[in-house]
Amino acid sequence: MEKSAVYHRPSDNFAYSINKTTLQIRLRTKKADVQNVKLLFGDPYIWENNEWQIEEMPMTLSGSDDVFDYWQVYVSPAFKRLRYGFKLQSDADTLIYTEKGFYETAPLDTDFYFCIPYLHQNEVFDAPDWVKNTVWYQIFPERFANGDSSLDPKDTKPWGSEKPAVNNFFGGDFAGIIQHLDYLVDLGINGIYFTPVFKAYSNHKYDTIDYMEIDPQFGDKETLKRLIAECHSRGIKVMLDAVFNHSGYYFPPFQDVLEKGEQSPYKEWFHPHSFPLTGGERPNYDAFGFVESMPKLNTANPEVKDYLLTVGKYWIEEFNIDGWRLDVANEIDHQFWREFRQEVRSIKSDLYILGEIWHDSMAWLRGDQFDGVMNYPFTTNIKNLLAKQSITGQEFIENMSKVYHNYPKNVFEVTFNLVGSHDTPRILTECEDDEQRTKLIYTILLTFMGTPCLYYGDEIGMSGGADPGCRECMKWNEEDQNLDMKQHIQRLINLRTNERLLANDGEIEFLLPDSPNGIFGYRKYTEDKSIVVLVNSTDTEKSYSFTEPLSDIKDIYSGKTYTGSSVTLEGYGFAILNY
Amino acid sequence: MEKSAVYHRPSDNFAYSINKTTLQIRLRTKKADVQNVKLLFGDPYIWENNEWQIEEMPMTLSGSDDVFDYWQVYVSPAFKRLRYGFKLQSDADTLIYTEKGFYETAPLDTDFYFCIPYLHQNEVFDAPDWVKNTVWYQIFPERFANGDSSLDPKDTKPWGSEKPAVNNFFGGDFAGIIQHLDYLVDLGINGIYFTPVFKAYSNHKYDTIDYMEIDPQFGDKETLKRLIAECHSRGIKVMLDAVFNHSGYYFPPFQDVLEKGEQSPYKEWFHPHSFPLTGGERPNYDAFGFVESMPKLNTANPEVKDYLLTVGKYWIEEFNIDGWRLDVANEIDHQFWREFRQEVRSIKSDLYILGEIWHDSMAWLRGDQFDGVMNYPFTTNIKNLLAKQSITGQEFIENMSKVYHNYPKNVFEVTFNLVGSHDTPRILTECEDDEQRTKLIYTILLTFMGTPCLYYGDEIGMSGGADPGCRECMKWNEEDQNLDMKQHIQRLINLRTNERLLANDGEIEFLLPDSPNGIFGYRKYTEDKSIVVLVNSTDTEKSYSFTEPLSDIKDIYSGKTYTGSSVTLEGYGFAILNY
Repeated sequence: MEKSAVYHRPSDNFAYSINKTTLQIRLRTKKADVQNVKLLFGDPYIWENNEWQIEEMPMTLSGSDDVFDYWQVYVSPAFKRLRYGFKLQSDADTLIYTEKGFYETAPLDTDFYFCIPYLHQNEVFDAPDWVKNTVWYQIFPERFANGDSSLDPKDTKPWGSEKPAVNNFFGGDFAGIIQHLDYLVDLGINGIYFTPVFKAYSNHKYDTIDYMEIDPQFGDKETLKRLIAECHSRGIKVMLDAVFNHSGYYFPPFQDVLEKGEQSPYKEWFHPHSFPLTGGERPNYDAFGFVESMPKLNTANPEVKDYLLTVGKYWIEEFNIDGWRLDVANEIDHQFWREFRQEVRSIKSDLYILGEIWHDSMAWLRGDQFDGVMNYPFTTNIKNLLAKQSITGQEFIENMSKVYHNYPKNVFEVTFNLVGSHDTPRILTECEDDEQRTKLIYTILLTFMGTPCLYYGDEIGMSGGADPGCRECMKWNEEDQNLDMKQHIQRLINLRTNERLLANDGEIEFLLPDSPNGIFGYRKYTEDKSIVVLVNSTDTEKSYSFTEPLSDIKDIYSGKTYTGSSVTLEGYGFAILNY
Repeated sequence: MEKSAVYHRPSDNFAYSINKTTLQIRLRTKKADVQNVKLLFGDPYIWENNEWQIEEMPMTLSGSDDVFDYWQVYVSPAFKRLRYGFKLQSDADTLIYTEKGFYETAPLDTDFYFCIPYLHQNEVFDAPDWVKNTVWYQIFPERFANGDSSLDPKDTKPWGSEKPAVNNFFGGDFAGIIQHLDYLVDLGINGIYFTPVFKAYSNHKYDTIDYMEIDPQFGDKETLKRLIAECHSRGIKVMLDAVFNHSGYYFPPFQDVLEKGEQSPYKEWFHPHSFPLTGGERPNYDAFGFVESMPKLNTANPEVKDYLLTVGKYWIEEFNIDGWRLDVANEIDHQFWREFRQEVRSIKSDLYILGEIWHDSMAWLRGDQFDGVMNYPFTTNIKNLLAKQSITGQEFIENMSKVYHNYPKNVFEVTFNLVGSHDTPRILTECEDDEQRTKLIYTILLTFMGTPCLYYGDEIGMSGGADPGCRECMKWNEEDQNLDMKQHIQRLINLRTNERLLANDGEIEFLLPDSPNGIFGYRKYTEDKSIVVLVNSTDTEKSYSFTEPLSDIKDIYSGKTYTGSSVTLEGYGFAILNY
């Protein structure tokens, strides 16, 4: 047995509460090295005749990546306390793995074992229930719809009359969004994520001037209230975007420091290295990257903290928003986010907190900070598979299995899966305008674990390159829309909405292909029910063999029925089987 | 290369701030598998000609255990941000290890790499500076000295007149401690850890009745103030013991719930399963273990939290204590401890917070909760080596290397190392009254990393079995004291006090023996200076060979001078070399 590959530590993705009484425990071993694993466990205080009472329970092989196998099991300790270890069996040997190392036989003293001292109710990861059944739609307000031309900024161009540029405006606003909410209802989505709407000079509004005011080009506070009420009456949740890592250049406190230097009462709101402040290629103050117009806020300063927490609460209290998406969330200190969670959750107990983090995010997802992060590993993998076509189906499923096991299961269920945004080329463009591959991407996005998000216009086949190309005006004339793409997405959303298994109400099993480019898939299941999604990520017909014969297995997307023991899919085909 | 053994994750013991500008980064590989490792790193926002600017820096092999090699390096990112990976070279191949996996050549995009988004000043682990230079002395107040017989509880026995029993009293008190402070100064210690002193019926006082009152058998609040002032005037820090996980049976709120059941306003202060409360073998409320007289407090209840945080602050504000030792700290929720740290640190910025945790404690040592934990892995290892003699010197040094790498270095520097306490048989008894082995244990305790603690009376060779045997009255007649043992300990404390390298002011290198039972050791060093401690843990003479010849190397303990290329030590001998 390869001892050096065996890993467990009693926290994070390896041991976590699923609910008030149940833990999930995971173990990592070298790929194809260990035949079976049992959990050895007991209450540390239950001894009989001077012997600690140990139970055994088999663990499930829950997935593999290119290097590792992963094992998991649920356990519900009667008295909320657990000491545990693992019994690993390979061809060559059987070993007991504990916190203190490996043993031939199970040590009899609890001190050797991993420890969950007590299951605290306030430590159960508690993302809002509604999130895992949500299909998000991202709106870039300047480009969705112009409903009130009286608000148009100076030099506003006629809708869609030219390509988006860094500095042009088309007059999108709240009124336009309200007018098209029924379009979104028809599409089937039930959550909208708005990029920033607060006062700022740019068209993207990431350069906040005033966190307490709506940018007048979008409307006023009353219009936003009406927009949110109209969303809620249609069962649509609303998430706003908060840029707390840095302010815009014209944020008055920053202007004050620019003007007064060391004399400014706001100098501690930022991270100046010296005075006066100077910008340029290497500003003499911390910034987002080295962008002089995005000075980093000092979120450890109590005044800044108070101000931003007030902002966080204000839009919930007064406007009843349902979620905050937090821009550049990783560059702000953990303590700030812990207080943020406590404050906003004290006002709305089911508020969703979503962080923008591109890398491994475990440190923010321990239950005390965020409910989810933007799942860029999913984005990268699915693009590599079907847009760039640089990885095989086997690599895709191994990579996703790795990411899945990198987070607690209940965290992964509410991760925010996206295939495009205002920051990236549109997915159809990434797929070289290949509709089949783009459609297959949506099939996976809308049937995988996590909560999917559509970027406005992608559902009607809009194209566009990197920012600003991906920020074109929404096309409202049906003749400009790819209705075939839209129907595909609509149908998938509908299936997902009516079949909770397709959302996140069960377990997932990753189905490896029989060859690197073979059909791969995933099975989502509960004790009663199971759905298998099969994907052919290549351009040629392929078959997938089941170990047990199929009899009248229905594809709930196409209505087709399968019998025999294998399923054949055309190039870029898929099946969603009630199996 | 054994890929499955390679581990890094950018948090906890693998990546942490050492100070406001410097990180330490660590990597784990399979033992003896990788020849050298380099850190690849850069600022994520520094690109030139569309190429990310990556630097390389060699990492140091900082230790090995039975399964792994560990590598580490310091890095000071110019702009507080870091993306990084590792270049690993083995006999067979060279691989780049990143967050996304292994590559043959270094990926050019920052997205592949591990990420430290920003070094936040408020996230640097900040144990008080004084702790790493502290030698602690643990006092069990009922048994140290009786200085005021007017306070003696009913049936107090004459000092040392009989063996300690579960329920007998000898009248130890604060006045007695004050009378003997100069003895402690002479011994050389500079910190006292007192087991509980608050109102309780037992002799050990772990069954708190009133957290705001001193038990009258020890004295009153004025006497405690005087005791603490007398300590401070001698440069001795004072740490009290807080039992917040559970109260005593006679804690008035618990009595109220016992009496009034569901009608008690205090019912939410505990974890009742049903009413009325019943004790017995399986109480119908959560307790410490199943001990009916130790009902678990509900530390998530804001009223309980307020009460205990008030307690935490009161003894600092009014009595100027320097540290809190937290009993059964692992069974209390993390959120409570985070608030505890913020509250007590807001009053005294260099207060030391020490948790009693017996198992892997990383989750409490992330800088937001405790400064240190009681280092029981050290206790177990040193006892196994020299008391039970169940492991070899090689195993000892491998195990300690494992524990060292299991925590950030700056955490390990302030871990609380003990070889005996009121909960365990005395160390001399554990060593079967073998003074040589006991002395060698103290040599290691007082020269290793971490902050050592002596249990009262151990320094004069007191013996005693498991609780209550280990709680005998302190022996104050010199003829009853082992002065040879005392001088050994005194000398070691003196060396440690005068030679900061022996405390925690440098790096540590673990020196493996040339055979399992050979001489092992550790080298403590800075750029300027180095001290090598060598230990012969067997009863026969052994030699240790240096690769470079010694010339007039002085043993700072014995004064002996070594030349040649090896050091010979008699059975259970040691050397502390200025090398």
